[in-house]
Order: sequence, then structure tokens, then C-alpha cells
Amino acid sequence: MTNLRFTIQYDGTRYDGWQRQDNTGSTIQGKLEHVLGEMVGHAVEIHGAGRTDAGVHARAQIAHCKLNTALSPREIRDYCNRYLPEDIAVTACDQADERFHARLNATGKRYVYRLWTDAVPNVFERRFVCPWERALDLDAMRRAAAQVCGTHDFRAFSSNKRMKKSTMRTVTRLDIERIGGEVRLTFEGDGFLYNMVRILAGTLVEIGQGDRAPDSIPAILDSCDRAQAGITLPARGLILDEVFYSVDF
Amino acid sequence: MTNLRFTIQYDGTRYDGWQRQDNTGSTIQGKLEHVLGEMVGHAVEIHGAGRTDAGVHARAQIAHCKLNTALSPREIRDYCNRYLPEDIAVTACDQADERFHARLNATGKRYVYRLWTDAVPNVFERRFVCPWERALDLDAMRRAAAQVCGTHDFRAFSSNKRMKKSTMRTVTRLDIERIGGEVRLTFEGDGFLYNMVRILAGTLVEIGQGDRAPDSIPAILDSCDRAQAGITLPARGLILDEVFYSVDF
Repeated sequence: MTNLRFTIQYDGTRYDGWQRQDNTGSTIQGKLEHVLGEMVGHAVEIHGAGRTDAGVHARAQIAHCKLNTALSPREIRDYCNRYLPEDIAVTACDQADERFHARLNATGKRYVYRLWTDAVPNVFERRFVCPWERALDLDAMRRAAAQVCGTHDFRAFSSNKRMKKSTMRTVTRLDIERIGGEVRLTFEGDGFLYNMVRILAGTLVEIGQGDRAPDSIPAILDSCDRAQAGITLPARGLILDEVFYSVDF
Repeated sequence: MTNLRFTIQYDGTRYDGWQRQDNTGSTIQGKLEHVLGEMVGHAVEIHGAGRTDAGVHARAQIAHCKLNTALSPREIRDYCNRYLPEDIAVTACDQADERFHARLNATGKRYVYRLWTDAVPNVFERRFVCPWERALDLDAMRRAAAQVCGTHDFRAFSSNKRMKKSTMRTVTRLDIERIGGEVRLTFEGDGFLYNMVRILAGTLVEIGQGDRAPDSIPAILDSCDRAQAGITLPARGLILDEVFYSVDF
């Protein structure tokens, strides 16, 4: 068996997220396992670095998978792209160290949340941006973003009520930029809790609208109470942009 | 009645082109006339600068239309964007001179044809590029493009067999650029015959592949014979990028 590392791009609009479900729904993992399984003639399990939710996109999701095949990584990549639906692509396939695990070895991730704030819609990017009509004060959002950065208990920013594992995470970067008609939020950190990026983005948007104070983040963090944080923004504006690994892999 | 000038953006993938058809098919013109008719309560006719074919996109199609309404141009724009499907948007609406006619007053147009030549597909741009696997010699294509520019009888580059009007046209610009994994062809001219951009692009691609000589354009033009020119490339890679008017409008 060869351990392979895949870089995967997808438009998540039509899918029920990354993770395979039992007999229901259409998932990215399910589509990949089906195509790879047909290719090698045995059952295949592919492990993604992050389990993106329904409707969330990825520019460069990373996954690994053990295959019994004589095909080269490039042949595997091209086979996948021939048989995958056109909203999923394998942008790279490389032989990996046999110990490489896409999720366990990931040291961090970058997510991008894209708000479309222009008065007229963007037809060409519509599947990848969340339309937002109200004006946003980016300076207020940036002041709040600075308080998000660092190592904190992010329990208040997660929808998972039965979280038993640690909810401590480190956010290393939270940039807020205006790019034409778009407001783009870029999040980097060692890991993100369930819905954490979308709730952080929703809280920052409420601050940008003036519905919350820019200095309200520390109290929300301290509360460990989901009800104290802002709304969960829609999936369509969220993109898993990159997964980071240490130089060992 | 107020004469209004509309700038319209659309993803043509789902449509049978710009032009309204009698009771069959879904067209951009039909969608706009329906929404505007509901808004003003009378039958509406909207005239586009160019009748894009099924599957062709527009970044800035121009159209005019006479409406009996007290709404401001901005209110009309916002009403349209509220009720149009999300693959069509009115990016601008302005009051126009009562003599302004979007098609008759147009002095030129810019079309862009986008080929995706990378070995891996582009998921996010897939609706707006034509995948092309074979390698293209851009220098050969540029030598041929220089012979396309100028005033010629372009009958050989049109699919319209019963063309009675003049087939003389002037191409003022034909640029060929590589942008990342994309080869982009930009056409400007005073007007384009039916399928002319897609047949010119197909002929240039055949030259880029080495299937035709770079200096073969003059003989094709002279022949006035569609069969001498290259293939018609698919609609999906074609975008009506801009329509030009004289300063009078």
C-alpha cells in the first residue's frame, strides 16, 4: 500500500460537507472514495485535514489515503479529475511518508470568509461570497480582531454543546481587508472548533455594524457561553484556504 | 416614458442566450422584461447591444428600455436585483437621452475568450473557461492574430449562411495572454458577425497547436468560405466584456 497525499479543491455548494455519511447525502469524501475505489478495485478510505460543513468550499483541502496501485501519483490525479464531478478537483497528488496523516499532522489552517458588500450583486463570484447589505466599520472590526488573536478558550465561539475535548485554540492571524466590493476576513490558527470561523465572523460583523462594542470580545471569551457571541454566518462565504504542516512532512 | 440605459452582468450557463424566444427557452432578455414588466405594470421591451448566444456570459452587456415609472434609476436597479435570478444582475441603471439605442449607437465591443490550459481543472472558474488540454504556441497565435486585425470581409469566420448584409468588419485589437493556467484572447472591433469570435478563437487555437500555419489567415479571409476556417469553440469560455459608445451618449 502506498500512502498518498491529495490536495483537493471544491465548490461545496451542492454538497453535504466533506464527511461521508451513511447512505444519505452527497459528500466530498464520498465522491473521492467512490472514484478512487473504482480505480483500484478495493474499498478506499480517505482522511481529510478538516471536516468542512455543508456548503463550505476549499481551495486546498489536504487528505491522505492508502492505495494498492501501480499508477503514478500523476496518473491518479488525472484519473480522479476525469471521473470526479466538475465542482471537485484533485489539484495535486504526491507520494507521502507512510506515517503521514492529513489531520493529525496538520499544525494549522487558514480559512477565508468573504462578504460581498457592494450595492450590486457579483454574478461571477456569487457561489463563494455572502452578500451583506449593511455598512461595516472595518476599523472597529480590526480592533476586535486583535482581541481574538492569541491563545484562548474559544468555547463561546463553538456550536458544539457536548465538546469534551479542550476548547483552547491559538489564533495567529485575523486580517480584515476591503478588496473592491468585498470584505475579506482571513483566519489562521492551530485549529478551529466546530463553526468557530463562522461565529467569529458573525460576531465581527455585528461589531462592524455597531451592534456590539469593539472591546466586547474578552467578555465573550470569558463567558464560555455560545449565547454571548454573534450569529453564525452562512456557509457559502467560507473557504478552507490552506492547511499547514511542519517541515517533517 | 423614460429611456433607461442598463448595464447587465450574467452567467449565461443556464440560458438560451440573450434574445427572447416565443414561449420556448429561458433567455436573459425574457427574464429582464418579465421583472421590469411586473415593476411598471405594462409590457416592456428591452434592447441589448449584442445578442449573445446560449451559454455565453456578459460582464457588461448594455441595453436600453423605455419605461413609464416614477421610480429612480437606482430604485429600478435595486428592484431588478431583488427579483432577478442570482445569475443575472443589473450593475448600473441610468437615465439616457431619449434617442439612445443600445445596439444602433454602439461603436464597438470587446469580447474575451478564456481557455483553461492547466493540467488540473479550475473548480471556481469552471463555468467561465473552456478547458483545453493540448499545448498552445502563443507566439504562432500572435503572428496569426496580427493578420486578423484590420478591416476585412470576415464572411469565412461566420456561421450565418444567409448573410445578406455587409460582412466587412474592423478588428482593432486581438491580444493573446497567458495568465496563470489560463490563455486569454481579447477581441475588440466595431462589430462581430454571428459566431465570429468563437470561430476566430478556434482557428487561432488550431494554429497554436500546429495544425495550421500561422500565416494562413489571409487565404481564409480571401476564400469567404466558412469551411476554410477552424472550429467554433464552445460558448462557455466567451464573455461580452464591454460595449463602446461615442462620447455623444
